Amino acid sequence: MKKQRQNILIGQSGGPTAVINQSLWGLVSTLHGERAVRHLLGARRGVEGLLAGDLVDLRATGRRRWKAVAATPGAALGSVRKKPDAAECAQLLERLDELEVRHFVYIGGNDSAETASIIGGLARAQGRELSVWHVPKTIDNDLRVTDHCPGYGSAARFVACAFLGDEEDNRSLGGVKINVLMGRDAGWLTAASVLARTRKDSAPHLVYAPERVFDVAAFLGDVDAVVKRIGRCVVAVSEGVRDASGAPIGATGEKDSHGNLQLSGSGHLGDFLASAVKSRLGIKRVRADTFGYLQRSFAGCVSTVDAEEAFAAGAFAAKAMLKGREVGGSVVLEREARKRYRSRCRLVEVSKLAKATRPLDERFLAKGPDIARSFVDWAMPLVGDLPQVETLELERWSPRPRARGRGRARAGLC
Amino acid sequence: MKKQRQNILIGQSGGPTAVINQSLWGLVSTLHGERAVRHLLGARRGVEGLLAGDLVDLRATGRRRWKAVAATPGAALGSVRKKPDAAECAQLLERLDELEVRHFVYIGGNDSAETASIIGGLARAQGRELSVWHVPKTIDNDLRVTDHCPGYGSAARFVACAFLGDEEDNRSLGGVKINVLMGRDAGWLTAASVLARTRKDSAPHLVYAPERVFDVAAFLGDVDAVVKRIGRCVVAVSEGVRDASGAPIGATGEKDSHGNLQLSGSGHLGDFLASAVKSRLGIKRVRADTFGYLQRSFAGCVSTVDAEEAFAAGAFAAKAMLKGREVGGSVVLEREARKRYRSRCRLVEVSKLAKATRPLDERFLAKGPDIARSFVDWAMPLVGDLPQVETLELERWSPRPRARGRGRARAGLC
Repeated sequence: MKKQRQNILIGQSGGPTAVINQSLWGLVSTLHGERAVRHLLGARRGVEGLLAGDLVDLRATGRRRWKAVAATPGAALGSVRKKPDAAECAQLLERLDELEVRHFVYIGGNDSAETASIIGGLARAQGRELSVWHVPKTIDNDLRVTDHCPGYGSAARFVACAFLGDEEDNRSLGGVKINVLMGRDAGWLTAASVLARTRKDSAPHLVYAPERVFDVAAFLGDVDAVVKRIGRCVVAVSEGVRDASGAPIGATGEKDSHGNLQLSGSGHLGDFLASAVKSRLGIKRVRADTFGYLQRSFAGCVSTVDAEEAFAAGAFAAKAMLKGREVGGSVVLEREARKRYRSRCRLVEVSKLAKATRPLDERFLAKGPDIARSFVDWAMPLVGDLPQVETLELERWSPRPRARGRGRARAGLC
Repeated sequence: MKKQRQNILIGQSGGPTAVINQSLWGLVSTLHGERAVRHLLGARRGVEGLLAGDLVDLRATGRRRWKAVAATPGAALGSVRKKPDAAECAQLLERLDELEVRHFVYIGGNDSAETASIIGGLARAQGRELSVWHVPKTIDNDLRVTDHCPGYGSAARFVACAFLGDEEDNRSLGGVKINVLMGRDAGWLTAASVLARTRKDSAPHLVYAPERVFDVAAFLGDVDAVVKRIGRCVVAVSEGVRDASGAPIGATGEKDSHGNLQLSGSGHLGDFLASAVKSRLGIKRVRADTFGYLQRSFAGCVSTVDAEEAFAAGAFAAKAMLKGREVGGSVVLEREARKRYRSRCRLVEVSKLAKATRPLDERFLAKGPDIARSFVDWAMPLVGDLPQVETLELERWSPRPRARGRGRARAGLC
C-alpha cells in the first residue's frame, strides 16, 4: 500500500450492538490521517448502500464527533439484514471495481462474513486486486474461531445488571419471574444471567439454554421444586428453546390475535410459560419479561473491555491493510494464557467465520437447567465489574425474654 | 422524645424502586446512634411481617453494609401488596402497642399511605400514643401533593436510556418499534421517553399516555404518517391505554392460550399493536418491547438526585421524630423556585397522599400523541445527565465529477 493511494470502503451489517461503532472508529482513526488512503468511504446500510451508491466520506467529520459516535450504540452507518445472492455479489464486486476500492471491510456477524467471503472469492477468481476484511460483531457471541465476539460483553453486562436487580425485586415480593433472553440458537447471552449470582440462592435459579431440549413438564417440575425450597424463583430462558421435535415452545397451534406465529420481538414465549406456571402450579404471582432489543441498544451500559476490544479489532484490520502483507481476513480475538485477562487480535480466513454459528460450549452447560461455574470465570472479564448489591440478612428479632437481656448486656458494654 | 427511650418500627410496602432502600437508610442512619431510640425495628414484608411478628433489629448491621444496601434496588426488608382491612388495621395497632412502638414508619405509595392513615386515625381515636409516618416511593410518580416522588427519577432514567439506544437501533435497521411502559393510570413514565430526544426527528416519534383515549385506528394513522415522513417510527405507549369505553386496548375478547386476560407483566399490548401495524399497514419490520420490571429494578441505572432525595426524605422523617414537635405525617418534596434545581422536604397529613393518585399533569400533555416541551425542563433535573449519543450526519458522497474537484481544492489548502 506504499506506492499508490488507495480507496477503502467500510460497511456495517446485521443487528447492531452497543460497540459496533467502536470497531468503525478503530478503522477510521487508524486510516484517517494516512496519505496512502485516497478515499475513506462508508456504505450506508451495508451492501444495500454499496449497490445503491449511497456512500459517505468518513473523513468529513472531526475527531471529537467521531469519539462520541464510537460511544453510541447502534450502527452509525446504518445496517442491513440483506444476504446478497451470487448475482448480487457479482454486482457488488462491479461496484467496488468502479469505485476503485482496494480494501472492502464488512463489520458484522456470520452472514456478513459469508457475504465478504463470497465477494473475496469472486475477486480472486477474476484476478481483481481487492482485499476483503471482516470485523466481527454480535451480541449473541455465536461466531466460530474467535474466543468471543465484540458486542457480546456489553449485552452480557446488560443481562447481568438486569438479573442483579431482578433478584432484589423478586426477593422483595416473591413469586415466579421468567426472563426471556436473546440468542435463538446459542445460549451465550442466556448464560450471562448467572454472572448476577452474588450469594447462595440468588437468581437465576433456573437457566434454559437453547442447546438443550426444553420440556414444559420438566420446566414446571423445576420451578415447583425451587419454589418449594426457597419460596420464589427467577428463571432465565433463551427465546430459542425448542422441544424434542425441534418445535419452538408454546408455538404449536398457538397464534396471536392476527394469526401470526412470532417468537422473537414478541412476548409470546414469556407469556406462554407464565401462563403455564400460573395455571398448572397454581402460583399466583407470576411475571414474565422479554428483554428484547434493550439487550443490544441500552445507552450507558457498555463493558469497557468490550468497547476496547471492538475498537482494537477495527484498528487491527486497518493496520494490517496499511502494512500490506495480508490479502484480507477476519479479525478474531485470542485470550492470552495469563492470570490477568488480556486478549490479542489475529487474522484468519474470512470463510472460517462464515455461515455456521457456534453454540454455547458444551463445557459451560451444567447437567440440569443451569450453567457451569467455569463460565463465570470465562465471561466475567468481558463484562467488567458489576454494580454492588447487598442484602440485610438479619435474624428475626423478638421482644422478650432473650432480646431484652441481650440489649441490656450490650448497653453495659458501651 | 427526650425523656423516655422509644421504639421505632419501619416497613416497606408496594412495588420496589431503585432507591427505596435509600429512604430506609436515611431513616436508619439518622436514628442508629440516638440513645433516645430504644429499639429500631424493621418489619419484614411490611404489615405482613408486623402481623406475623417477623421483625428484625435494624441496628444489627454495620454502616458499611448499610451503605451498600442503600445503593441496591429492591426492598431490603421485603415488601407486600397487602391492603389491610379495618379489622386488620386494628390488629396492627394492637401489635404496635404490644411492641411499645412510639413511631411507625411506612415507606410506600398511596396504598401504603392509606394503611398508615387508617392506623394513625385508629390510634388517635383510642387515645394511644403512636405517631405514624409515611415516606413516599413509587416509580409511577402518581402521588398527590409531592412535586415528584422518590423512585421516579431512576425509573425515568432507565426509560430515557432505553429510548436513547433504541433510537439508534431503529435508525440502523428501520421499521416500526413499539415500546410499552409502566404506569397503568399515570403517564409520567411514558412521558419520560421524550427525555431521550436529542435532535429533530429522534425517538420517540409518538407518545401515548393513559390520560388520553387510545384509538387503534388513529394510532395506525399516526404511525403511517411518521413512516411516510421519515421512513421509520419509534412509539412510546403506556401499558394502561384504554379505548373510549374504558376497555384496555387489545383486550376485548382476546385472551392468552390459557384463557387469561392479562396486560401488566405480559407482552400482550405490545404484541397486539405490532400485529396491527404489520397486518393493517403492511410494514414488514415491526417489533415491540415491553420494558416491564427492568424499569424499577435494573442495577446500575440510578439517578443521583433521586437517590439523594430518597435518602433525604427518610432522614427528614427521622429528624422530625427526634425533634418531637410533629405527630407524624407524610414527607413530600417541594421544588425550590430557583434557576438551579433544588428540592426540600416538608410534612403534610398522611391522608393527603392516601387513596387517590395523580395523573400526568394536563399541562404536560401535548395536543396530539406527544408530550409538551415543558415536561423536559421539569423532569430532566430528576433524571440527571444522560449518556451522550452522536450520529454521523454526512452528505452523500459521489466519485465524480464534483467530489474529486472538492477533494483537490481541500488538498490544496493543507
